[in-house]
Amino acid sequence: MTEQNWTKLGLIAGGGDLPLEILKAQAGQPVFVIVLRGFADRDYSGVDNVSLSVGEIGGIIKALRGAGCDAICFAGYVSRPDLKALKMDTRGLVMVPRALAAGRNGDDAVIRVVVEEFERAGFAVIGADSLLGQDGLPVGCLGRAEAADAHLDDARKAMMVAAEIGRLDIGQGAVVSGGVVLAVEAQEGTNAMLERVAGLPAPIRGTPTDRSGVLAKRPKPIQERRVDLPTIGVDTVERCARAGLAGIVLEANGALIVDRAGVEASLQEHGLFVLIESAQ
Amino acid sequence: MTEQNWTKLGLIAGGGDLPLEILKAQAGQPVFVIVLRGFADRDYSGVDNVSLSVGEIGGIIKALRGAGCDAICFAGYVSRPDLKALKMDTRGLVMVPRALAAGRNGDDAVIRVVVEEFERAGFAVIGADSLLGQDGLPVGCLGRAEAADAHLDDARKAMMVAAEIGRLDIGQGAVVSGGVVLAVEAQEGTNAMLERVAGLPAPIRGTPTDRSGVLAKRPKPIQERRVDLPTIGVDTVERCARAGLAGIVLEANGALIVDRAGVEASLQEHGLFVLIESAQ
Repeated sequence: MTEQNWTKLGLIAGGGDLPLEILKAQAGQPVFVIVLRGFADRDYSGVDNVSLSVGEIGGIIKALRGAGCDAICFAGYVSRPDLKALKMDTRGLVMVPRALAAGRNGDDAVIRVVVEEFERAGFAVIGADSLLGQDGLPVGCLGRAEAADAHLDDARKAMMVAAEIGRLDIGQGAVVSGGVVLAVEAQEGTNAMLERVAGLPAPIRGTPTDRSGVLAKRPKPIQERRVDLPTIGVDTVERCARAGLAGIVLEANGALIVDRAGVEASLQEHGLFVLIESAQ
Repeated sequence: MTEQNWTKLGLIAGGGDLPLEILKAQAGQPVFVIVLRGFADRDYSGVDNVSLSVGEIGGIIKALRGAGCDAICFAGYVSRPDLKALKMDTRGLVMVPRALAAGRNGDDAVIRVVVEEFERAGFAVIGADSLLGQDGLPVGCLGRAEAADAHLDDARKAMMVAAEIGRLDIGQGAVVSGGVVLAVEAQEGTNAMLERVAGLPAPIRGTPTDRSGVLAKRPKPIQERRVDLPTIGVDTVERCARAGLAGIVLEANGALIVDRAGVEASLQEHGLFVLIESAQ
């Protein structure tokens, strides 16, 4: 973990388990949670929290300051909000349209505008990986010890495709099986992509009894890594297993594994691997 | 239409309406149809035909020769066959595995192996576009007369993304709305991609009352254009309409429109456009 030069964390919680993982890792430390209405979907009643809309930027900043936070971490899924239905305060009214206009250049532009706004307000922005003690996810292999040559070829091609897709700011992921690009991730997200792979005709993909194909996830080159690092969890492994894939490939220092013990158990159960490769 | 230096056409019919369109365009000319079992899904009982599996390459060549064909056209959808269930004759047993091994480099390699086999057997391979009198699909616009600037921006970006995706031999299509790449087509095909777009959260896509976004389809640079030209039809327009898109962009001389009159009527009905741009 990097040296900590802040005193109290504000956790801005979107959907999924990642915010809970961070609370667990920060146990004993003071944490204040902004529960993002419409996105956060776990129980935060056990910790100091306030529920606000992503459009209430002024309200979020005020609440964080009121709680004495000098650092923040964005964690969990947030999708583009529906402007017509979004509750916005004055600062939100200024910023949200600006962020969405930046979004014409892709998701990363939106994220960058939001991060800069909070930095200007005086908060240190901390990556979820560093709070989970995962910065420096090392090169290596989890789960099934040996990946066959065909799987390594697929992993290599999937990483190449994911790099190109990221360079174009389209998405973070791709699936390759037998040298064929089965699917590329754009706005639908990794889970929907994996479901799609599971629905492809059997001859072009693997099956649970004859696994083939690798999911690659890697950060976009222009990515704000403190906010939107590629993430996998038990759910990802189980979807890969159902899609007949042989494994997952990630970039060292460029991904986040939520519930590492659970992920390792699921890899063992289904006979899948996770390769962590050095960035090219 | 290019000059015809062959006497009798063998139509190798896969799924969808394209083979029927070609029969209509060739009315009065002698045509023999190979009905590909498991793929062809229209009624060919009105014309000379024989039903064979894609693995019966020797049988297909023999039937075409027996019928006096000296030219062939591949038309309609064919997906990668399941080798375990595929009926193959001797020539098929030699060729199909070779084609599928070539497939490790992508679909175009498969197609090229198949085309070369038929050319070696002495048949001229004719593109569907030339039989439909569509070679030279000209630069222009069908349907709604004016595309807004935002739609033209989306069309430009969708064409750029489709070009990159094609260069990587991933697929032929992409959808961009408001500058954001909503979806990229790989093995699932255009229809599944459009359904996916229709299922994305409303804030990032258009709706039938406030249309946004453009589907681009263009050939891959390495593509065997006589066999696998990007194709749209009434069904494509209707799926785009349901996905809230504003239009479609194609490359001049690089696409096929099945049932042109029907497509124009559907564009009028839904208020969509088709742009046909010169290849860059």
